[in-house]
Amino acid sequence: MTEAAGYNVAILGATGAVGTRLIEQLSQSTIPVKSLKLLASARSAGQTRTFREQAIVIEEAQPASFEGIDLVLASAGGSVSAALAPEAVKRGAVVVDNSSFWRMHDDVPLVVPEVNEQALYEHHGIIANPNCSTIQMVVALEPVRQAYGLNQIIVSTYQAASGAGQTAWNELNAEATQHLAGETMTADILPVKGAQHHYPLAFNLLPQIDVFEEEDYTHEEWKMIRETKKIMLGDKFSKDIKVTGTAVRVPIGIGHGESIYFEVSDAEKANVAGIRQVLSTADGVVLQDDPANQLYPQPLNAEGKRETFVGRIRRDVENDGSFHMWVVADNLLKGAAWNTVQIAERLVALDLVHVPANVTIPGPKAE
Amino acid sequence: MTEAAGYNVAILGATGAVGTRLIEQLSQSTIPVKSLKLLASARSAGQTRTFREQAIVIEEAQPASFEGIDLVLASAGGSVSAALAPEAVKRGAVVVDNSSFWRMHDDVPLVVPEVNEQALYEHHGIIANPNCSTIQMVVALEPVRQAYGLNQIIVSTYQAASGAGQTAWNELNAEATQHLAGETMTADILPVKGAQHHYPLAFNLLPQIDVFEEEDYTHEEWKMIRETKKIMLGDKFSKDIKVTGTAVRVPIGIGHGESIYFEVSDAEKANVAGIRQVLSTADGVVLQDDPANQLYPQPLNAEGKRETFVGRIRRDVENDGSFHMWVVADNLLKGAAWNTVQIAERLVALDLVHVPANVTIPGPKAE
Repeated sequence: MTEAAGYNVAILGATGAVGTRLIEQLSQSTIPVKSLKLLASARSAGQTRTFREQAIVIEEAQPASFEGIDLVLASAGGSVSAALAPEAVKRGAVVVDNSSFWRMHDDVPLVVPEVNEQALYEHHGIIANPNCSTIQMVVALEPVRQAYGLNQIIVSTYQAASGAGQTAWNELNAEATQHLAGETMTADILPVKGAQHHYPLAFNLLPQIDVFEEEDYTHEEWKMIRETKKIMLGDKFSKDIKVTGTAVRVPIGIGHGESIYFEVSDAEKANVAGIRQVLSTADGVVLQDDPANQLYPQPLNAEGKRETFVGRIRRDVENDGSFHMWVVADNLLKGAAWNTVQIAERLVALDLVHVPANVTIPGPKAE
Repeated sequence: MTEAAGYNVAILGATGAVGTRLIEQLSQSTIPVKSLKLLASARSAGQTRTFREQAIVIEEAQPASFEGIDLVLASAGGSVSAALAPEAVKRGAVVVDNSSFWRMHDDVPLVVPEVNEQALYEHHGIIANPNCSTIQMVVALEPVRQAYGLNQIIVSTYQAASGAGQTAWNELNAEATQHLAGETMTADILPVKGAQHHYPLAFNLLPQIDVFEEEDYTHEEWKMIRETKKIMLGDKFSKDIKVTGTAVRVPIGIGHGESIYFEVSDAEKANVAGIRQVLSTADGVVLQDDPANQLYPQPLNAEGKRETFVGRIRRDVENDGSFHMWVVADNLLKGAAWNTVQIAERLVALDLVHVPANVTIPGPKAE
């Protein structure tokens, strides 16, 4: 395989909110695509999607689908990735997976290119794309960590409906229409598909994202804790940076907001002007922090953008070395499809689109 | 004046989102009302409102309107309260004011009855009702403070449009209708009436509530810091409890949410079970904290309720003595009209509905 000849690429889960954007982001990427295969469930097989002005018929995803494929971009949910990613790797494909299934596996790098691109060198065939709310937080905080060190992160999220998939997003819009017409809202999906109770999100707030786990934290909250440590420190159990938070679903379509409180290691050196300076030139970050002109990140302005937007940077006036910031990104792009394609671009640039010899192909071991 | 005879009451600002609820909450209260006068701007004069099945014609508010009045419940904005509250006090009326104008005045108690009812004894004629987002926070945290002490509060708010008034709430609904119809949203009010820029709130998040002030905190954020200290500690500059936070407007009509992180003084004694126990019997609090049954506070469920709802209580697993909670209340009731009427009920019960002799009547000194 040479770069000039291009790569045989497959997108697994091509019809969802993220899948649609994977096709779009891949078409706008620098990756030389020799062929593209679109894979989905049997239900979607036979539909067509357009890639670089070419109509492609969606095929049902099977282990044999990956014969001859070099690179798989996957966003098909945990159980599908658990079953199919090893099948793709066995057939010589490198998989960049957007589900949560592989993220904590010891042999699977969890990568945000602005933060830990070097982890790609350790891949055994599968690279995991982190959780949407984790990605934008580490993009915003890694430059601060590089400059001043980081002791602690306390985050409260404001997460859009599309983070729970296209059907949840549709449900929000249907509920809003019902509410504005004075009708009773009906909820069948949020907060968690298949849960015991469903609650309307429109004109409401749901402090539950994913299921409840140990210590009464939700799975989403644990993801933010463990993934942040793995990405920044290489170890999901590291105590070098303390991380905690609360994840809340809010009635917006696209764009997660995060109110982040953080404590740096070098309290004497760090100040608001310095943090702004560091972030103004940081990779993947757009600083939007001009209170006098009412400039700060807003989800509506982040929609369709690849960057992470940061503003409202302030010191805690009663705690030296502690600060606030407000971070927004398009959860379907930097939080999912763009970060996945960006990882693939880096794999291409570093000539890592091949399954290394003599590595264990990860087996399906749950997070 | 004897309680049996009842009080001559005036509501100043009777037509707004809060004013409407002041009439409703007063009608449901234990206060013996001998007569009720409804006051508003010249624009609303002549309209009628119903109180206890009696139609009352709204009059234009003037200094002379307060002749013979014993008790004024005011929600007419800062400049109106600055001008008219001293006029009412001069005429012998006690004013419970919902604007921010008097809150930090040394001679004005700032009261949440569940927390600092005793401050009412010090009034000079004006009692201030705190900011909506402050009230629900101190109702939820005071029982924790009594049990374990409190070192620090870090809050991120999720505040409803109605907190900015009826016109802002109407604007949110109009924007949502536009957005769902595929039209461009038009914004003329939020984030701050009369500001340089206006942004849509529907399907968006606005990390600006009120104007920006020192240290790039908004006025709303400073309110939460100073009012919390004044209510809990009697001193807006006290450092005995550190308070900081971020205030964000979210696209919902009624019900503020708050993600609160707090550190207690007695880390060895405090635990989640103890905090739940303390809050389960706390005055004005409803504990909704059963993750296994997906029970947690939601704005839609708090609408129309007088209580403050608390859930998602968890420890920070990496910091002994630090905890999270999620707090929701109806910002127009406990955050405004009900707390105002509740203060009035307490004034009546404590026989404090009279301007004490030999006190300075507060002059219009801005916060």
